Amino acid sequence: AYTTKVSRNANIAKLQAGYLFPEIARRRAAHLLKHPDAKIISLGIGDTTEPIPEVITNAMAERAHALSTVDGYSGYGAEQGEKKLRAAIAATYYADLGIDETDIFVSDGAKCDISRLQVLFGSKVKIAVQDPSYPAYVDSSVIMGQTDLYQQDVQKYGNIEYMRCSPENGFFPDLSKVPRTDIIFFCSPNNPTGAAASRDQLTQLVKFAKDNGSIIVYDSAYAMYISDDSPKSIFEIPGAKEVALETASFSKYAGFTGVRLGWTVVPKELLFSDGHPVAKDFNRIVCTSFNGASTISQAGGLGCLSPEGLKAMQDVVGFYKENTKIIVDTFESLGFNVYGAKNAPYVWVHFPDRNSWDVFAEILEKANVVTTPGSGFGPGGEGFVRVSAFGHRENIIEAARRLKQLYK
Amino acid sequence: AYTTKVSRNANIAKLQAGYLFPEIARRRAAHLLKHPDAKIISLGIGDTTEPIPEVITNAMAERAHALSTVDGYSGYGAEQGEKKLRAAIAATYYADLGIDETDIFVSDGAKCDISRLQVLFGSKVKIAVQDPSYPAYVDSSVIMGQTDLYQQDVQKYGNIEYMRCSPENGFFPDLSKVPRTDIIFFCSPNNPTGAAASRDQLTQLVKFAKDNGSIIVYDSAYAMYISDDSPKSIFEIPGAKEVALETASFSKYAGFTGVRLGWTVVPKELLFSDGHPVAKDFNRIVCTSFNGASTISQAGGLGCLSPEGLKAMQDVVGFYKENTKIIVDTFESLGFNVYGAKNAPYVWVHFPDRNSWDVFAEILEKANVVTTPGSGFGPGGEGFVRVSAFGHRENIIEAARRLKQLYK
Repeated sequence: AYTTKVSRNANIAKLQAGYLFPEIARRRAAHLLKHPDAKIISLGIGDTTEPIPEVITNAMAERAHALSTVDGYSGYGAEQGEKKLRAAIAATYYADLGIDETDIFVSDGAKCDISRLQVLFGSKVKIAVQDPSYPAYVDSSVIMGQTDLYQQDVQKYGNIEYMRCSPENGFFPDLSKVPRTDIIFFCSPNNPTGAAASRDQLTQLVKFAKDNGSIIVYDSAYAMYISDDSPKSIFEIPGAKEVALETASFSKYAGFTGVRLGWTVVPKELLFSDGHPVAKDFNRIVCTSFNGASTISQAGGLGCLSPEGLKAMQDVVGFYKENTKIIVDTFESLGFNVYGAKNAPYVWVHFPDRNSWDVFAEILEKANVVTTPGSGFGPGGEGFVRVSAFGHRENIIEAARRLKQLYK
Repeated sequence: AYTTKVSRNANIAKLQAGYLFPEIARRRAAHLLKHPDAKIISLGIGDTTEPIPEVITNAMAERAHALSTVDGYSGYGAEQGEKKLRAAIAATYYADLGIDETDIFVSDGAKCDISRLQVLFGSKVKIAVQDPSYPAYVDSSVIMGQTDLYQQDVQKYGNIEYMRCSPENGFFPDLSKVPRTDIIFFCSPNNPTGAAASRDQLTQLVKFAKDNGSIIVYDSAYAMYISDDSPKSIFEIPGAKEVALETASFSKYAGFTGVRLGWTVVPKELLFSDGHPVAKDFNRIVCTSFNGASTISQAGGLGCLSPEGLKAMQDVVGFYKENTKIIVDTFESLGFNVYGAKNAPYVWVHFPDRNSWDVFAEILEKANVVTTPGSGFGPGGEGFVRVSAFGHRENIIEAARRLKQLYK
């Protein structure tokens, strides 16, 4: 066959297998091919299942209809998002934290923003990640050329700092042992462990970043799941604006995984070493590589942040939190050690000394339940599986029944 | 002020001023501040103005409402887009061209896909662009580190091949003088010149790419505006699948500039030098950096491709084409040489020996009409302005009146 003379991007060639979640979808499909009658329940990818409250979809339908009218039509919006939505996000989530509406960049989701942030930082930076953590941080770093090759023996990429988070350290890294990096990705409540960092821990993290001159990329996509007094934003920590930006999403609050809407906060106070504001360069990336979130999704965002919308989102979050409790009770009744769950829609179940892909396969084959193998989130996830609490109640109950059968 | 120790990305520092269109918006706002009563007409950014046909917005509103039902709810979709939409795009635009639905990647717009393609290619490639051309090709190349510094004397970035397109060569580059590059960005009908390449010219281009082992990134965002027998897709040219991919958009057909929906075709036949399929790596980028277009926008795309939707889009395109004729007649009656327009919603007006930012300022200040200075699209655009045909009819007529006043 004819081949061009264009070399394949060597950074992409470094990536191992497929991106985690498509890989799980592939294995699920293979299982279904072998067992066409299997009634599979997915507690894997973390995909929302409950209908979006009507107050929110009505706002979107209304905007869609308005686009057919002369007065209601709008074309290109501001790349940074509609002023009204930016103001509503600032007022709802960052009141009294010194975050201004102009610090908010509305986006089509946190995952997309993470990649845009990597393009912003470029290939010369070194990142740190919690281990385990959401795989998009590491994979986007590899793609941008920030890393060396994958090292099979330790299951890590070279030139990434993996900050081990385990039951032994309460899922918060021992910062005294972490070397300086330029960027620190930090997700709290964490995906996959479900652990939310306390105010004291985040104060340590901000101090650590400030001492090192690092930038924290704080992922707060699950903040509304917090039940205790853990901070919901890094900007609750004094001084964070000088060392952190924050990415967030409507996906897990309003069921917007398919609607696509999130935001990133880049405070004006966050400066590169030459004094240039990070927000200014991020704005350039957003204007060059992105054209704004869909106006209809943005209308949905405004619906979410109305008084009725906020109440409705609380109900959605509350429903998934009840699911979490059912899953926790199930595994605990079977004698497993279970983590997370209190402040997150994820249950992190310990299978000591077992390979997590083997456990994944066992649960899929014997219970027809899809989970996510912990090692997919980094070597620190080995011996765990993540069980997502997103699901219809009857499916959660049925999955619990099958798991009890399997591990009784 | 406290600064982090993270160095600013040197590639972003190479970029000149703001991205073109936000810069124009800034100048427009400054003009309005000075003349608060000015009735500005924008024929600048190329933003659609006409309401979206109801058959399309109804489809979106219906999907929005369905998301509030148990049966109609969906979360994460396939990152590559809904199977039904991919199939409809393949059947509508690529029937008999050997393009399969699995070659189609649905996206949130061509601009976003251009940046994802640059991430796919990485920092080691060299690109060629038509000069003048849509600025996102060059700016995204600079951001990815493919270029050297900007050279003020020639108004070009180092390590980009600028293929001059002018009235003298019928807006098609003299390929015998173009050195090999890895990637060739080629937009037809071209933004900003409005020129559509003929079948013979595109056959030359494909042969040129094949001889050099280059990859053509073909931007067909304006294909529906073609009135003559110029090809609407690069895949109409035999052999193109081995050397080209194509990016396209609903923005200028259905007024989706704010709704955000486009697609990129990456044929399985397109291979890197080591035989690895380009589509396989693009899929990895899409899965890692993107979560699919909004499901509501995708429902709109299906509305667009229904029989009624296709008819309605033709009417929208026809309306803007009538605008184009008014603008052409205006400038020709004033003795200007005018290009493009026949196959595109852009009129490329020649102001010989004048600085195009000066002409932009003159038209803004004296006629309160926003245009786009040709030099914003590359040094080959100097001495031209682009006049966009997107506008309400009464505004087009009023702009024509003012221009006649100004240049009579």
